Amino acid sequence: MEFARDQWYVAAHGVEVGRDLLARTVLGEPLVLYRTGAGEAVALADRCVHRRYPLSQSRLDGDTVVCGYHGFTYDPTGACVFVPGQRRIPRTARVAAYPVVEQDSFVWVWIGDRERADPAMIPRAPWLADPRYAVVRGMAPLDARYGLLVDNLMDLSHETYLHGGYIGTPEVADTPITTEVDEDRGVVHVSRHMDDAECPPFYARSTGIQGRITRWQDIEYHPPCLYLLHSRIAPQGVYPPAQGEDSDAFHAEIVYAITPSTAHSTYDFWAVARDFAVDDESVSAYLHQSNHTVVMQDVAALNVLERVIAAEPERYQELSINIDTGGLAARRLLARLVAPGTVGAPR
Amino acid sequence: MEFARDQWYVAAHGVEVGRDLLARTVLGEPLVLYRTGAGEAVALADRCVHRRYPLSQSRLDGDTVVCGYHGFTYDPTGACVFVPGQRRIPRTARVAAYPVVEQDSFVWVWIGDRERADPAMIPRAPWLADPRYAVVRGMAPLDARYGLLVDNLMDLSHETYLHGGYIGTPEVADTPITTEVDEDRGVVHVSRHMDDAECPPFYARSTGIQGRITRWQDIEYHPPCLYLLHSRIAPQGVYPPAQGEDSDAFHAEIVYAITPSTAHSTYDFWAVARDFAVDDESVSAYLHQSNHTVVMQDVAALNVLERVIAAEPERYQELSINIDTGGLAARRLLARLVAPGTVGAPR
Amino acid sequence: MEFARDQWYVAAHGVEVGRDLLARTVLGEPLVLYRTGAGEAVALADRCVHRRYPLSQSRLDGDTVVCGYHGFTYDPTGACVFVPGQRRIPRTARVAAYPVVEQDSFVWVWIGDRERADPAMIPRAPWLADPRYAVVRGMAPLDARYGLLVDNLMDLSHETYLHGGYIGTPEVADTPITTEVDEDRGVVHVSRHMDDAECPPFYARSTGIQGRITRWQDIEYHPPCLYLLHSRIAPQGVYPPAQGEDSDAFHAEIVYAITPSTAHSTYDFWAVARDFAVDDESVSAYLHQSNHTVVMQDVAALNVLERVIAAEPERYQELSINIDTGGLAARRLLARLVAPGTVGAPR
Repeated sequence: MEFARDQWYVAAHGVEVGRDLLARTVLGEPLVLYRTGAGEAVALADRCVHRRYPLSQSRLDGDTVVCGYHGFTYDPTGACVFVPGQRRIPRTARVAAYPVVEQDSFVWVWIGDRERADPAMIPRAPWLADPRYAVVRGMAPLDARYGLLVDNLMDLSHETYLHGGYIGTPEVADTPITTEVDEDRGVVHVSRHMDDAECPPFYARSTGIQGRITRWQDIEYHPPCLYLLHSRIAPQGVYPPAQGEDSDAFHAEIVYAITPSTAHSTYDFWAVARDFAVDDESVSAYLHQSNHTVVMQDVAALNVLERVIAAEPERYQELSINIDTGGLAARRLLARLVAPGTVGAPR
Repeated sequence: MEFARDQWYVAAHGVEVGRDLLARTVLGEPLVLYRTGAGEAVALADRCVHRRYPLSQSRLDGDTVVCGYHGFTYDPTGACVFVPGQRRIPRTARVAAYPVVEQDSFVWVWIGDRERADPAMIPRAPWLADPRYAVVRGMAPLDARYGLLVDNLMDLSHETYLHGGYIGTPEVADTPITTEVDEDRGVVHVSRHMDDAECPPFYARSTGIQGRITRWQDIEYHPPCLYLLHSRIAPQGVYPPAQGEDSDAFHAEIVYAITPSTAHSTYDFWAVARDFAVDDESVSAYLHQSNHTVVMQDVAALNVLERVIAAEPERYQELSINIDTGGLAARRLLARLVAPGTVGAPR
Repeated sequence: MEFARDQWYVAAHGVEVGRDLLARTVLGEPLVLYRTGAGEAVALADRCVHRRYPLSQSRLDGDTVVCGYHGFTYDPTGACVFVPGQRRIPRTARVAAYPVVEQDSFVWVWIGDRERADPAMIPRAPWLADPRYAVVRGMAPLDARYGLLVDNLMDLSHETYLHGGYIGTPEVADTPITTEVDEDRGVVHVSRHMDDAECPPFYARSTGIQGRITRWQDIEYHPPCLYLLHSRIAPQGVYPPAQGEDSDAFHAEIVYAITPSTAHSTYDFWAVARDFAVDDESVSAYLHQSNHTVVMQDVAALNVLERVIAAEPERYQELSINIDTGGLAARRLLARLVAPGTVGAPR
C-alpha cells in the first residue's frame, strides 16, 4: 500500500498533547509531540541526529527536548542547542519540525513537502469545538492497513452484523444507499435514510425515544483522513423540513480521523458530538463506553482481516455489490491522491 | 516443503464438529467445519466472497452460515443465499465446499481436484468406531512441519529417551527393527518385536501385568495421513499363535492422523483403542492423560527442532542409521505423492 | 553486520558452567557447555549429528552427553560413543568440539579455524581472579546488535543521561576525552579525568567518601570482546602520584565481555572488581544490584535502538562529535578484524 503524501493528517486529539512526550508514527514517519509552556503543539522527528535514539524516550527541559541517551537538546524548531563534551554545535544538528495546526480539537500535521503545507486545506469538524455540543472521544490503534478502516466506515451495512445490540438494526443492512462523488472537492457522500426503523440502544438510551424512529445517516468522506457521519434521529414520522431549522430531531456528529501509521497499522481517532442532553454526564459516559465498544469490535474484525490478507495476498479476491459503491469511490479518490494524475486502487 | 494434494486428510475428530463453527487450516487451505441439523459434517472455504472475512468468526442460522461482517449467508453447498441491501444475489457468490467423509470417528476432507475424490481411497482405522474397543483421543497442534512428526512416529527408538517413564524402556532403543515397503499399496511397515522387555507404566497400570513382558510394535503407515501402531502386550513368554485368536494378549491400536496445516504447522490427531478393561473408566482416564503427556513431549521436542531447522537451513545435515529405514521409506513414498512419477525427498 | 571470526570470545562466566548443560549461541554458532567430573570446561556444537536435535535439551551421563531424542551419546572430544539399535558407530558421527580456555574467571571459546587458536592471544582481566579484589558479576542478553553495545561503552557521556542517579553526574558529559589507538596491539584507549566532580551514589555508598571527588575513567578496549574500565576515585584534590603506589585512592576494575550471539543479539557479561571493602558483603550486594540496574538501563535503551535501526535501515544516518572518537576508532579496529587487510565500518 502506498500513502498519500503532501496531506494533513490527525496525529493526536488536542487533549492527548501536553507536557509529556508523545510518540506517534504517521505514514511511517516517527514523530514526538508535545506542548510548549505557552501552549503551542510541537511535532518533531523522533530520532536524535547523533545515534537516532528516539527523543520520545526522553524528557522536556522547559520547551526543549533532552535526548535520554547522550543529552543532545532540541528547541521547538528542531534546532540543536546543546551537545555533550564541547561548546561548538555542528551546523547540521537539527531534527525536522513538522507543520502543525490545532483545529476542531485535533492536532493536524503535514506529511510531505512543507512548502506545500496550506492550513486552509484542512477539512473541518466544527462540532468538536462548539460549546453547543457535548463531545466524547478516544483513539484506538489498529494492526490493520488504513484501507480496511476506510472500507469499514464507508459501508455501514456492517452495523447490523458486527455491531448488533449497539448501533445496528436490521434496517441498516436492508436499506439501499445513495452515493455521490464530488470530484472537484474530492469528497464522497453516502446516504441511507431509514424512515421507519428500530431504535438501537445507542440512541434509545441517549435520547430517551421509545418506539420506532426516523434514522438518517449522511456520510461525508474527505480523503485521506477525515470521515464525518451526520446522524439524525427522530421519533418515527418526524421528517426534516425542506428548509430552516431541524430542531425536532436529535443530531449526532460522528467523526473519525483515519491516520495511516505504518503499512499495516492505523490510528482510529473517533469522536461523537451531540446537540442533545449536552449537560448530562451520564449520557456522555454511556456514549463514550458504547462507541468505544463499537470501535473495538471494528478493531478486532479488521485485525483479523489484516492477518488474512497479509497471509494470503495471492488469493485476494473480492466480490462487490451495491453497498460497496461508497467504499469503491473512496478507494478511487485515495488512489488519485497517492498518484496524482493516475487512476487505480490504493491497495 | 511441498504437500501431497489430491488426497484425503483428517480435519477433525467427529466429536469436535458440532453446531459451533470450527476453523481448521489444512494444507494451507482455510476451512470452516460444522454439522447440519440433520447431523451431516460440512466443510466450506473459510473466506467470505465479499471481503474475505473468515466465516468461522461468524454464526450458524439453521444450516446456513451468516458472515459476521456484512451478513452474506451460505448454505451447506457453499451457495450464497442472502446479501445485504439488494434482492439479486450475484451468480458467482459461492464459497468452495470440500468433499467430506466421516469414517472410523474421523472427519476426512479431500484437498485437491474434487473430481478425483474417491472415498474408497480412505485408509481404515476400524477399532476407533468398534464397540468392542474403548477409545481415548485428542488433538495437539504442532508449530513444526509435517515431516518431523512422520519421522518421529516412524522411529520409536525415541520412546526410550523422550518418553522414558511413560512408554519407553531400554529395550525399545536396543531392539533392531524390520522394515517392509508395500510399493503397490503405498504402505510402510516397521516392526519391533521385544520378547523380553520391561513393562512401561503405560501398560503396567492399564493391563495390571506385573513383571516382564513380550511387547510387539507393528507400524503401518499409509501416507500421507494415517499412521497405525498395532501394539501387543503379554506376560513374558506368551507368544502369538501361528494362526487363530491371540486372546492371551492385550491389544492397543494406537492411531495418529498427521495433517499438514501450513508449511510450518501440523495437526496431530491421536487415539488409543484397547480391547482390555474396556468398561474401566479409570483406565480410560489414565491412558488419556498418559498419551496426552507423551504427545506433548513430542510437540515440545518437534517445535524445538522446527525452530532449529527453520533458522539454520543451510546447515541442515543428517546422519541416518538402521533405525531410520522406516522414516526414510516414508519420506520416499511421500515424495512420490507430492510429485507423482518422480523420486525425491519431501523436505 | 559481519562478525570477526578466528577470535576468542567469552561464552560464559566460569561459575555458570557446571554439571548442567548450558546453551549459548556465539557468532551464530550453537554451543552446549558443561564441566567434566574432573572440572574441565567443555564446549560442543549443540546439534546432534542424527537429526540435529539440540544436545543442550539433553542430559549428562558421567562426562558424556546423551541426546534427549534418540540417545546418540558424545564424549568431551565430540566423538559419538553410542547409537541406538546397532553396535557399529558410523565413523563420521562426531560433533565439533571448540577450543576452550578458562582464564580470569571467564570461559573463552575460539570461533573459527581451530588450527589458529592461540591461548596467548586472549586479553587479560586479572583482577577478576585476584584474591585482593572483591568481584560481583552478571550477564544480560541484549536483543541488539553487538556494535551498539561497543558504541555505548566507548562513550561514557551517556552515564549522565541514561544512568543519572546511579553512576552519572554532570561532569561526565561535560569533561572532554582523550583517545589513543595502539594500532599494533589493536587496542583503543579513551580517558576522561575529572579533577573535581560530584560523587555518584555508586561510589559514595561503596567507598564512604562524602563530598566531591577526583574521578578518573581510563578505558582499554581489546576488540572484539574485552572492554576494561579502570576507574579511580579519591576525595577531591587527591591525585595519583607520578610513580609508585596509588594507595590513597579507591580502584574499581569494571570489565565487560561483549559477545555477539546472532546478528541482532548479544551477550553482555559484566564484572566489577574492587580493592576496597573487599570483605564487606553489604558493599558487594549494593554494587551487584547497582551495576545490574545500570546494565539493564543500557539493555532497555539498546533494544529500543536496535528496533529503530532494524526497522528503518534506509534512514540510518549519524552525526558524530568529539565524544565519539573512541567509538569510531573501535569500529575501525573491528572492521579490520572482520576483513583483515581492509578498512571499513563493521555495521
